[in-house]
Amino acid sequence: MRHTAAALVAGSILSLPLACAAAQPPAASAAASGKERTPNSPESARAAALLIGGALSDGVTYERLTELADGIGPRLSGSPGAAAAILWAERKFRDDGVPVHTEPVMVPHWVRGKEAAEIVSPALAGPRPLAITALGGSAATPAGGLTAEVLEVRSLDELSALGEKVRGKLVLFQHPMATAHDYGEYAGLRSLGPLAAARLGAAGALVRSLATASFRSPHTGMMKVDPAVPAIPGAALATEDAELIHRLLAQGPVSVRLELGCQTLPDAPSFNVVAEVRGSEKPDEIVLLGAHLDSWDLAQGAVDDGAGVVMLMETMRLLARLPTAPRRTVRAVLFINEENGLRGGAAYAEAHASEIGKHVVALECDIGAGAPLSWTVNAGPAAVAIWQPWLKPLETLGCAGLAEGDRGGADLSALQKRPGAPAVVELIQDGTHYFDVHHSAADTLDKVNPRDLAQSTAALAWGAWSLAQMPEAMPRPPAPKAAH
Amino acid sequence: MRHTAAALVAGSILSLPLACAAAQPPAASAAASGKERTPNSPESARAAALLIGGALSDGVTYERLTELADGIGPRLSGSPGAAAAILWAERKFRDDGVPVHTEPVMVPHWVRGKEAAEIVSPALAGPRPLAITALGGSAATPAGGLTAEVLEVRSLDELSALGEKVRGKLVLFQHPMATAHDYGEYAGLRSLGPLAAARLGAAGALVRSLATASFRSPHTGMMKVDPAVPAIPGAALATEDAELIHRLLAQGPVSVRLELGCQTLPDAPSFNVVAEVRGSEKPDEIVLLGAHLDSWDLAQGAVDDGAGVVMLMETMRLLARLPTAPRRTVRAVLFINEENGLRGGAAYAEAHASEIGKHVVALECDIGAGAPLSWTVNAGPAAVAIWQPWLKPLETLGCAGLAEGDRGGADLSALQKRPGAPAVVELIQDGTHYFDVHHSAADTLDKVNPRDLAQSTAALAWGAWSLAQMPEAMPRPPAPKAAH
Repeated sequence: MRHTAAALVAGSILSLPLACAAAQPPAASAAASGKERTPNSPESARAAALLIGGALSDGVTYERLTELADGIGPRLSGSPGAAAAILWAERKFRDDGVPVHTEPVMVPHWVRGKEAAEIVSPALAGPRPLAITALGGSAATPAGGLTAEVLEVRSLDELSALGEKVRGKLVLFQHPMATAHDYGEYAGLRSLGPLAAARLGAAGALVRSLATASFRSPHTGMMKVDPAVPAIPGAALATEDAELIHRLLAQGPVSVRLELGCQTLPDAPSFNVVAEVRGSEKPDEIVLLGAHLDSWDLAQGAVDDGAGVVMLMETMRLLARLPTAPRRTVRAVLFINEENGLRGGAAYAEAHASEIGKHVVALECDIGAGAPLSWTVNAGPAAVAIWQPWLKPLETLGCAGLAEGDRGGADLSALQKRPGAPAVVELIQDGTHYFDVHHSAADTLDKVNPRDLAQSTAALAWGAWSLAQMPEAMPRPPAPKAAH
Repeated sequence: MRHTAAALVAGSILSLPLACAAAQPPAASAAASGKERTPNSPESARAAALLIGGALSDGVTYERLTELADGIGPRLSGSPGAAAAILWAERKFRDDGVPVHTEPVMVPHWVRGKEAAEIVSPALAGPRPLAITALGGSAATPAGGLTAEVLEVRSLDELSALGEKVRGKLVLFQHPMATAHDYGEYAGLRSLGPLAAARLGAAGALVRSLATASFRSPHTGMMKVDPAVPAIPGAALATEDAELIHRLLAQGPVSVRLELGCQTLPDAPSFNVVAEVRGSEKPDEIVLLGAHLDSWDLAQGAVDDGAGVVMLMETMRLLARLPTAPRRTVRAVLFINEENGLRGGAAYAEAHASEIGKHVVALECDIGAGAPLSWTVNAGPAAVAIWQPWLKPLETLGCAGLAEGDRGGADLSALQKRPGAPAVVELIQDGTHYFDVHHSAADTLDKVNPRDLAQSTAALAWGAWSLAQMPEAMPRPPAPKAAH
């Protein structure tokens, strides 16, 4: 079902089929006064029906995700796909009747080229290609590749202790990641390992993919570079190949030829996309919702972070269709460049530094399309006590739980570092299989379960509305916290 | 633990740690007479302990598989890997004290080259590469590739009905394979579809991978060619990409550029590897065990059919270590060229035509490394009745069940077509995840569970011994049957 922006603005909402709204009082009774604004008021019940029921019965979330994944696809910062996604997102918000604008961001522009690797020694019966993919920020190898002996390490400390032995080697960062929970533990091997190896004179770096499942599928990601240190080539290696090299190393030295044709081009102009549903009573208090519009270049980015993007879009579409906007402003920011630079998050924090005090709470959706499980907030027990009663409409969806926690999206980290930063909320979703496809060529539409996505969208829509509606603003956290 | 062939032949078996044998009578009492050769005799119990206990507690099955997968790896017919695997297998049988020889086979020699594909239209935001891999037997495209409109079909009948509309098109064979059980239903789209499309003048063929899981992993396989019909390029497409094209086709025409650099070289000399443990009483009655030594070129072939190869090797090693060989001869044949020609199976049937009557039963292991579940035999209720009591030692492993069934390995099909063909037995193993990796780059050692592999090896060793030992030979099936 499609509506013109004009029809939405005119409030044609009464004609919509809303299964969950059927038992609610008619719209006329919802002209509630401020005094009635409690979690149990008729106005809250009606908003819950329209938002939760809307997302579950009448949503366009999956349809939007299909457009983004199939029609636009990969959208690494600086690419034509990223530019197309920005235009697409602007147009969709506008079609939905949600005021939208863009804010400029200069982004890194890294492009993948030819990539190949194979075991050169020990001599095996035939060619033994390795399943690799360059890490974002990697330097190219010489044309034809480089061949070097593999040096396996399991930690940055182990690398550091090897000192001079690292020179000229191809460092393999090995690790035992097995569950999604392990990601935080080992992600530093990818993000920091290659630079640490470069400082010690390594020829290159291979990082065992940070993955919870693999069919010879390498998982890329950002490797940090430092202008003061000559960059080296760095590639992710499929878990199967990392295990093969480990087994071969038990028998003797292993040498690998690595060829990467990637390039870092000059920074490119890009944009964050910012959409707002203006608050009906306290428009200067902002509930910030974030997701990131860029993706890695290997796949459609349906899970990371197409899912978050369309959850935000649908939330804004549903909020814009309500007869009355919530008291506070809900602002959705589709950040650019989360994957390889966080420039969008930094640009937002910089551009909005003067209004940081207006942000009462921030929430980023960047954990995929899994079913909603619960919530966290980083502003102490009072924050839990204030908001918890408002989550009751999510009980049937199984995600009405709220706990203290300091989880937050990477794009919010710049904001969180500033004095007076707002509280950060997270919608915890089922991420059991998130790292099966994360940053790999397999991050495609089919990995998204439309039912789970709709349920998380419903939870987000209700969460955003209730944060924008409850009488007291969420308290601020005791002190600025750096995102983890 | 390693033994020299001499030590094995001399019967140093008493010194081995055999957990399951501890409660058995001492070796001296096992010098049983023919009369005692029942499923419940002390001799049977001792053989069960030595074979089942040996495979489970002292086996080298997984170690052998590691050698084959890591040290040799891909071994498509005609490749250096196939040649190395033949030499390796011969040496291993010899080291194990199992007499072995090779038998010549001329095999097809197809080699993969550059492969790439992308969506050319509709115009999308950026490049959209497709995850493809050439099918065995495929022709090359012109250099630089061919571009053609995609025509989607779901069956050979649907293709046939399209007639002239197929000319110049890139036919996409779509199907809904979801479980291992579906393979037989849709495999014909891959094996027969491209040739059928070629007959109608298609420019090429894309076949949705026959897979039960995918991370953008195309699954190759053989496409039939006919010297009378100019061959066309044929490639497997990852399931994700097949679904993407299906969604795009709902909106309008889709054109794809396909580039394949594969070649069919002149047939190459190769070999079946044949090893025997000669029967102690009826050496002219043969229990034939088969597996195939070749694999596809994309991976290690650990599951298909490295697992079958090492199950046979370990069975022969354990049989050769018994104080007394079973009554009949057990012959293990490691066939070459199962994957893309079945020339090894045909050569064996031809070379052994004169002794077909000596084969009393045949069994091929080619369903991977999953846990053993049960057995089938194709020779009627009498065959079930005769053999069933002998499977009792496998009850604890959960695979003592026996039913009528006509399943059999592809390498046995030539034998089965001949008059006087022997009964065919199959060890049914858990194949739930077999088609997750089958014929793909993900068929690697890590996909094998050593415990499951050991249990299936134990079942095979006992199955082979009991078939070679039971007083009556397995009856022959009522009429030669073609393998399915």
